[in-house]
This record gives sequence, C-alpha cells and structure tokens, in this order.
Amino acid sequence: MTYLSKVREQNPLIHNITNIVVANFSANGLLALGASPFMADSHEEVEDVAQMAAAVVLNIGTLNEYAIQSMLLAGKSANRHGVPVVLDPVGAGATAFRTEVTARLTREIKLAALRGNAAEVANVVGRAWSSKGVDAGEGEGDVVSIAEEAATKLGSIAIITGKDDVIADGNSTYIVSNGHPILTKVTGTGCLLSAVVGAFLAVAGEAKAEAVAEGISFYGVAAELAYELTEGKGPGSFQTEFLNQLAVLTPERFLERSRIARHR
Amino acid sequence: MTYLSKVREQNPLIHNITNIVVANFSANGLLALGASPFMADSHEEVEDVAQMAAAVVLNIGTLNEYAIQSMLLAGKSANRHGVPVVLDPVGAGATAFRTEVTARLTREIKLAALRGNAAEVANVVGRAWSSKGVDAGEGEGDVVSIAEEAATKLGSIAIITGKDDVIADGNSTYIVSNGHPILTKVTGTGCLLSAVVGAFLAVAGEAKAEAVAEGISFYGVAAELAYELTEGKGPGSFQTEFLNQLAVLTPERFLERSRIARHR
Amino acid sequence: MTYLSKVREQNPLIHNITNIVVANFSANGLLALGASPFMADSHEEVEDVAQMAAAVVLNIGTLNEYAIQSMLLAGKSANRHGVPVVLDPVGAGATAFRTEVTARLTREIKLAALRGNAAEVANVVGRAWSSKGVDAGEGEGDVVSIAEEAATKLGSIAIITGKDDVIADGNSTYIVSNGHPILTKVTGTGCLLSAVVGAFLAVAGEAKAEAVAEGISFYGVAAELAYELTEGKGPGSFQTEFLNQLAVLTPERFLERSRIARHR
Repeated sequence: MTYLSKVREQNPLIHNITNIVVANFSANGLLALGASPFMADSHEEVEDVAQMAAAVVLNIGTLNEYAIQSMLLAGKSANRHGVPVVLDPVGAGATAFRTEVTARLTREIKLAALRGNAAEVANVVGRAWSSKGVDAGEGEGDVVSIAEEAATKLGSIAIITGKDDVIADGNSTYIVSNGHPILTKVTGTGCLLSAVVGAFLAVAGEAKAEAVAEGISFYGVAAELAYELTEGKGPGSFQTEFLNQLAVLTPERFLERSRIARHR
Repeated sequence: MTYLSKVREQNPLIHNITNIVVANFSANGLLALGASPFMADSHEEVEDVAQMAAAVVLNIGTLNEYAIQSMLLAGKSANRHGVPVVLDPVGAGATAFRTEVTARLTREIKLAALRGNAAEVANVVGRAWSSKGVDAGEGEGDVVSIAEEAATKLGSIAIITGKDDVIADGNSTYIVSNGHPILTKVTGTGCLLSAVVGAFLAVAGEAKAEAVAEGISFYGVAAELAYELTEGKGPGSFQTEFLNQLAVLTPERFLERSRIARHR
Repeated sequence: MTYLSKVREQNPLIHNITNIVVANFSANGLLALGASPFMADSHEEVEDVAQMAAAVVLNIGTLNEYAIQSMLLAGKSANRHGVPVVLDPVGAGATAFRTEVTARLTREIKLAALRGNAAEVANVVGRAWSSKGVDAGEGEGDVVSIAEEAATKLGSIAIITGKDDVIADGNSTYIVSNGHPILTKVTGTGCLLSAVVGAFLAVAGEAKAEAVAEGISFYGVAAELAYELTEGKGPGSFQTEFLNQLAVLTPERFLERSRIARHR
C-alpha cells in the first residue's frame, strides 16, 4: 500500500503556521491531497493544536516576532507529544534575520524534516550558496553532500528540492527526478510541498525517509501531469490543474511515473 | 424579485474581518456575487468601516488578540448603527481558546446571524459534538434542535451548514437541500458563505430568515452547477467554476433548482 | 526592445509590503510576468530587503500600526539606496485613517510612482471625490488634471487607473486605453498593477513615464485577451487566464493592441 493511500485514508490533521502569501494555497493543496489542514498561529492555542495534530509544519515566509514565538510554542509542544515537525526556512541566507531565525528554530526545536532549496539548506549548514531573494540562485556545491550534512547535523531528514530532489536522513539518501520547472512560476509550491511532507510523515510509521521520498515524487508527478494537461496555456491554468491532480492522481498512475533512486 | 437580484442591484458594502487563509477567496466571492467587499481590521478604522457598511462579517479563522479587539470594536460599532453582524465561529470547540473567544463575541456583540458547522454551533449552545480540527466530525444530536436552541439563546438567526443546511430564527425554521460535498475540499467555502449571508442580510428588509435561506440555497445551487460543469476534474477546476457561477447564475435558473423547505 | 522584454530578461526583484487579501495574487502575477517577488514586512529585515530590491511596492490594503512602520523603514531604505518606491493608497479617502496614513507615507518617503483609482489620487491632492469603500465612486473632476497635480505635488509619476488610465510625471502625460471592466470583479487587480508598475520602473532607465505607460498598457492588453478567451464564463476563469496572459503574451502581440496616447 502506498503512503499516498494512507494519507487519503487517514486524513491526517496538519497544523500549519505559515504566511499571508501561501496560506490559502497550502490549505487547498492539503485538502486536495486528502489531508486536513488546521491553520492556527495564536499563542493561546498553538500548543493545543500542535498536540492534536499528526504533523506540524512551520514556514518562515513572512515572518515577525509574534510568529517566531508561535513557532517555538508549537514546535516544542509537538516535540513533547511526539508529533513530527517540518521546517521550511524560506529565504534563509537571503537576509540576516531569516538566517538567525532559522538557526534559532533548528536549535530549539527537534525537527523531523527540513525542506528548502539548495541556498536555504546550504545556509543551515553554513555552506556558501548565492541566492536571489527567496529563490535559489546558482551554487557550486554538491546538493547531495549538503543534504547529508544537514541531516547529520540536525538529526532529521533533510530535503533539497530543485531540478532533482534529494532526501537524506543520515543513513539513506534518495534522489527523486520528478517535477517540472513551471512549479517555480507559482508562488507557494515549495511551501505546499513542505506541508505535503508533513502529511506523508504523519502516516509514515518507521520508514520515514521512504515515505517522504514517495511524497515528493507524488508531488512531482502531479506537476508533470498538470503541465502536460495545460501545456502552453500558462501558470494560471497550471495552478488550477495541479490542485486537481493532487486530488485525482491515483496510486497506480503515480507509480508508473515515479522516479525515486536510492543513492546510498 | 429575488434577494439575489437585490444584492446585484444594490452592491452592498460588506465589511469583513477575516483571516490570512480565506481573505482573497472571500473578497473574490463577494465581488463575483455582486457585493462590494471591504477588508479592514485595524483598530483605527474598523468602527468607521463598520458604520458605513451594509453588513459586518466576523470570522475567527486565524485569530489573535489584536483581531479579537478589532472584532469587538467593529461589532459594537455595527450594533450602535443598526448594521447587521454575522459571526463565523471557525473551530469553536476545537480549542479552548476558540470556544472562549466565541463565547465572548456572542456575549458582547448582538448578532444578526451565526453560521457554522454542527460542531461549532453545538459548541455555542454547550452541546457535545465531536470535531476534527476545524471540520465538523460526527455528532449524534439533532441539528434542527441545535440551530433552534442557538437562535433562541442568541436572539439571532442561527445557521448550521452540512449535508442539509438549517436556518432558524426562533420562530421559523428552514431546511435547504442544495450544495455539494466537494465544497469541503476547498478551503474557505464556509467562510465565504458567511460573507454571502451578510450580503443577503444587507438587502433583506424584514424577512431576514427568508433572505438568508435564499442566499444559502443560491450558494448551494452555484456549487451544484460548478460541480456538474467540472465533474471528474478536481477541486482546482471546481473552485474556478464556482466563482464563475456566483457571478453568472441567473435568478431564473437558480429558482429552478432551489430546494428550500419550511420546517416550521 | 520593449520594457516587457527587459522585465522578462532581468527578472527584477520586487519587494512587496502588502496585505492578506492580495499577497498571493500579487506574487503569482509578478512571477507570471517574469519578475521575482519578495514579500517581507518584518521590521528586522525590510531595510535589507528594500536595499537589495530593484523596486519597492507599498500597499495599504489591510493596514495596521506595525505595517505602517514596516513601510516607513522599507521606503526610507529604498530612498537611501536609489531604489524606486511605488505606493498604492488603497482606500485613501474612504476612512480618515487611510487618508492620514497616505499623507504620512507621501510626506516621509520620496515616491517614484503613486498608483490609485480616481478617488484615491484625488484624496492625495485634497480634491473632492466620492468613493464606495475601496472602490472609486463617481466624481466630477478631470482625472488628467488630478494626475498632473499629484505628479507635481509629489515630484513623482502619478497614475490614475479607471476606464482610461492616466500617467503623468509633471512634464509628459500619457493616456492608456487598454483594459477591461471585468478587472473590477477580481480583487487585487489594482494592487497587482501597482506591483507591475514597480517591475517596469525597475528596468526603465531614464524614460520612466514611458516605461510605466507601457507596463499599464501591457496589463490592459493581457486583460483584454483573457476576457476574450473566457467570454461569458465568469471572473473565476478570467482570473486564471489573466495570469496565463501575463506570462505568455508576447511583445509583438502586445504592441499590436497597445493603445498609448501622448496627451502632452
């Protein structure tokens, strides 16, 4: 049975602390996938919500002091109750503030997974990588070694998404070769992917890196199909069809196109 | 003349205090319907905006202390100036914080209408009902009696939406049997419905419960048609077509499919 | 070479301080156009982000004291570093608060461009104009003279968008006759246009008003084509196709339909 089927069967409750840009898209993407989003960031309730959730997803997209406290409260509550926490360090490295906040969150919260582009994950492990705003720029490093170093440093799964995606947990490393460049033309596709990682972790059992690799491959196949169905139309039509595919793509059709390689 | 036609003719100004997840969808839905949304939550202006509005819609989706004060200021200003107030108690019962905030808002503001799912409205009247995050779970109670109890307790219209929708004002009770389950796969469809209730209240004159029942039936018929036009495609296409239908569905076509029953 | 081509080639980084209603749509519109949006409003980083940006766009859509400080910090940083600043005074004149904030921002920040509807720009120069909420109502004044007065007063480009669009910089004045009324049925189309003005200013070189006029005409042509491709369907389909057109409309096709007249 695929983890995808488990997500659709169990409808895991995913607690998101996210930002004004992508909150709607993240919630709709999780609903399409079959998960149950709960967006909540007030200090009075984030500990309760994190405790009842099947995964907590923290996203530093548009950050402020209040939200940082929300994330610390939710993350620590999740840690106390055995709920996996995913961090999306949007723009880490792009400003000193985001670098510092990311360092603080990774120090004070035990992560189950970190997901970012190459520039963001490189920043977490102190490697040089140029970035352009919140987008990864050109870098010279080896993304596999950066992901593996981040996994070892954080004791969590580290995921770098880009042309190929790398999933490392310190022992195993997977390379996923699905997806489509048009994803970079729709805001929040990285953020939603982090939330999807949360949903797959929520149903993963012991084989966490394997479940995450499947989730990332599924997301990529949905993007490929959405692009094929809207080819030449543009990012508006792609976005609509991508939400469709998250909902209607069957495990069978997904497995036909899934490209996950065990790197080590 | 339908209330729908009145909304489209009068373009009532609807003041929304809502959340980062659904603000865009609520504004676009109101525009499609023919109303004029004004999203404003700063303490410096909410009283002014509420006073000039034809209805005020309060939504506790992603709540914090600042927004609670905004809602109290706006709600009390609306009360002073005879502007109807709709409350959407998103997640009441799911966390202690939301339960308390809902209790406070219903105590300090005189509502024209409360709209929620069964779990949320049951929470307002202290009835037991399980919930899953912000979604209604399974409950054993009778939704009609819960709606009627809420209407009597609050002295307002109480609306429970679900498979069937119940509209009670303490004297009359209507059951609306339109809509489609795919609405639960798009975030903010409940929140937008609360805003639509505000728009219909704004043009209702004396027959408030009747106008609200029509608005809820209209929303359901728009969903049915949108589903039929996008059947099998998925929630992305449904959401796009649903916004279309809110704009293009004529009173005549709506009335052909409207299913409103007078319960008592 | 068109400025459109320059935007697509240079992918200028546009720093947006905007609101919960339109943040997603603004980011997606900028991405579709070929620019690179950076949404950031925390006091700790807005000065850094403004400094590295090619343009800063300030939007007072849902305003609060924190965001005002963010805008002042970002705007002054942009001024220090020669980065053009665009202001969208959403709802100026609709509430006393928005009028005051707009006056403060235009006093403390040197603008490169101001973009609003007739009511908003009239408010900036102290002219009477009725408004309905955040939408321009009916006014009697001459929009050309209002735009020219605003340009002279602020020492910036002033843009009034409506049936026709006026772009004035104090010396030259352009009238753009592209666009479609359905734009008023999608929330945030004015806000996104302000962000697009930022993108065209970012690549303008010396001919700033000319570049802005081209950007506004481009936006209007994209709307015309999107309307034609979705005629009769409704605002949901229009919005999707409009994002498509921002991405796929070629300079050649745009120039065929562009209607820019030099007024003086």
